[in-house]
Amino acid sequence: MKRSKPVSQQDIADALNISRATVSNALNGTGRLSPELMQRVRDKAAELNFAPSGLGRALRTGRSSTIGLVLPDFRMPLFAEFARAFAMAARRRGMVLMVADSLGDLEVQDQNLADLAARGSDALVVIPMRGSRLDRMTLAKPMVVIDAESNPLNAVASDHRDGGRQVAAHLLSLGHREVLLLSAPGDPSGRDASRVNDARVAGMTEVFTAAGLAPHQLTLPNRLEAAREHFSRWQPGAITAVAATYDALAVGALSALVARGIAVPQQVSVTGFDNTVWGQITTPRLTTIRQDLDAVAERALAHATGDAHGAGIVPVTLEPRESTAPAPSLPQDRIAR
Amino acid sequence: MKRSKPVSQQDIADALNISRATVSNALNGTGRLSPELMQRVRDKAAELNFAPSGLGRALRTGRSSTIGLVLPDFRMPLFAEFARAFAMAARRRGMVLMVADSLGDLEVQDQNLADLAARGSDALVVIPMRGSRLDRMTLAKPMVVIDAESNPLNAVASDHRDGGRQVAAHLLSLGHREVLLLSAPGDPSGRDASRVNDARVAGMTEVFTAAGLAPHQLTLPNRLEAAREHFSRWQPGAITAVAATYDALAVGALSALVARGIAVPQQVSVTGFDNTVWGQITTPRLTTIRQDLDAVAERALAHATGDAHGAGIVPVTLEPRESTAPAPSLPQDRIAR
Repeated sequence: MKRSKPVSQQDIADALNISRATVSNALNGTGRLSPELMQRVRDKAAELNFAPSGLGRALRTGRSSTIGLVLPDFRMPLFAEFARAFAMAARRRGMVLMVADSLGDLEVQDQNLADLAARGSDALVVIPMRGSRLDRMTLAKPMVVIDAESNPLNAVASDHRDGGRQVAAHLLSLGHREVLLLSAPGDPSGRDASRVNDARVAGMTEVFTAAGLAPHQLTLPNRLEAAREHFSRWQPGAITAVAATYDALAVGALSALVARGIAVPQQVSVTGFDNTVWGQITTPRLTTIRQDLDAVAERALAHATGDAHGAGIVPVTLEPRESTAPAPSLPQDRIAR
Repeated sequence: MKRSKPVSQQDIADALNISRATVSNALNGTGRLSPELMQRVRDKAAELNFAPSGLGRALRTGRSSTIGLVLPDFRMPLFAEFARAFAMAARRRGMVLMVADSLGDLEVQDQNLADLAARGSDALVVIPMRGSRLDRMTLAKPMVVIDAESNPLNAVASDHRDGGRQVAAHLLSLGHREVLLLSAPGDPSGRDASRVNDARVAGMTEVFTAAGLAPHQLTLPNRLEAAREHFSRWQPGAITAVAATYDALAVGALSALVARGIAVPQQVSVTGFDNTVWGQITTPRLTTIRQDLDAVAERALAHATGDAHGAGIVPVTLEPRESTAPAPSLPQDRIAR
């Protein structure tokens, strides 16, 4: 295996004319050092592209450091893309990523976390299922949670609320006033709500409300088939746009509308969230919100390895494609309100 | 964590009025037992829903047995669905699945295998990248390879060649005589060829040849974008069907054709392989070959835990959808040959 020689703690020590032990303490947050010295060491480490945790040990021991990732469902393309982004980010740090699927079962999620910790993962990253009570877990290893900002455990998240704002502003700019807000519910107790879903709804609602509009609301299980089934019977009425909180919902709606001969976007515009590959193979392609998965993965691993503290919010961007267009002028008799 | 009390080896012994040691020998294939007794024990175990390998140990030790899966790319939906099927199959055995991504790098693939073995996986399953030399690896744990039959290391595979036969027979039955066979190449040395791709091509070619036809051939990298790019410029000529060895190629071709206003399936039929979700959200939906991933996963885990020996071939089935239809009658001047 060919590698360029990595920067060592000794290199940092030499550059600052301090001891290697001091560098180690500064990077690991151990020992008694002034905040200023700690910062100088970390700045130098960053300047030299020091790979903090894994690579050095991997080279010494011939075995990689391991990050464990627990996610809700391999089959949802967003999570598969997340897993890939994490595997790449881990690789850049000389670490190996092991991934486990929660299989729609909170017990499995918690068991996966415990198991990955027991199997020698240096740190755990979890994209929690709905209804998770991760605050009750005690693990021997650091755990980094990726959820919406409203989760007090959240370490890194995309700015889902701002994504909602961007979608709503896009639809408003195209003249849409009668929008169906399509989201995924929790169970009736609310215990099972998705913080990400709710942040997206809040962002959209915020912008529509500021424009004096009250969007129509519909909740469906976050599955392609559920949305497709519903929209195979749906009557558009006055509605000129469907704004969904996930690509799966948007693509299900879009494909059902197209199959029925309802023209997207000429009659109804459709938007999603997450920029998954699904929205790129529909006809028309889906307008959606792109998460910067690489940035989320990088920041999560920085947390996991102790290089970052405090929650981080990563910006998102609107990807306008062919599924959105100016609102049609509706004949008066189709305006239901 | 609440669990219903699992069936133990003692329960099986009690039900058959034999010793627990005999049950253990029968289930593990150890000791000297008549084939009839072994079968009786296994039938009773199946009847009682006994979870053979992992669960008992997990309950004794408080830690699950672990299966490691190494696959080529989380983002390809077939592999994500495979990972899910393996996680479910592992769960049914009371085991936990850990998955690692080869990141398009043979070194990473081999390192993942070594790492999962070192991290205490009881067995390893690998869906190899092209060009893998797994015969050179020595691991401390059993390794189960999932590849085409032509790989001497293969333990379980779908019947890719028969899938090719089924696609070709389907197109022939619809009257297609001028078919473009769209596959993914190896590098020019042939070292990097995909055995799965080649088995699918061989199956299709076998049937077309028997019908006295010589399909046209095109190779493209197995990526949606590569196929889309190519077919955005492609001239159909006499060709009435595109038969691709992967859904990614088929969906790329299909979406480019539709975007150009070439009617699928009225002018050109399109077929894929693998029944991924991609082919279910295109308009029209894709005719494709379905692998039985659950069966492959079950058999692979039976291998991994020593419950099965000898290579297994799992049947595949054609899923006819809207992307295939009878071949159009071509005007004479469009027949190029």
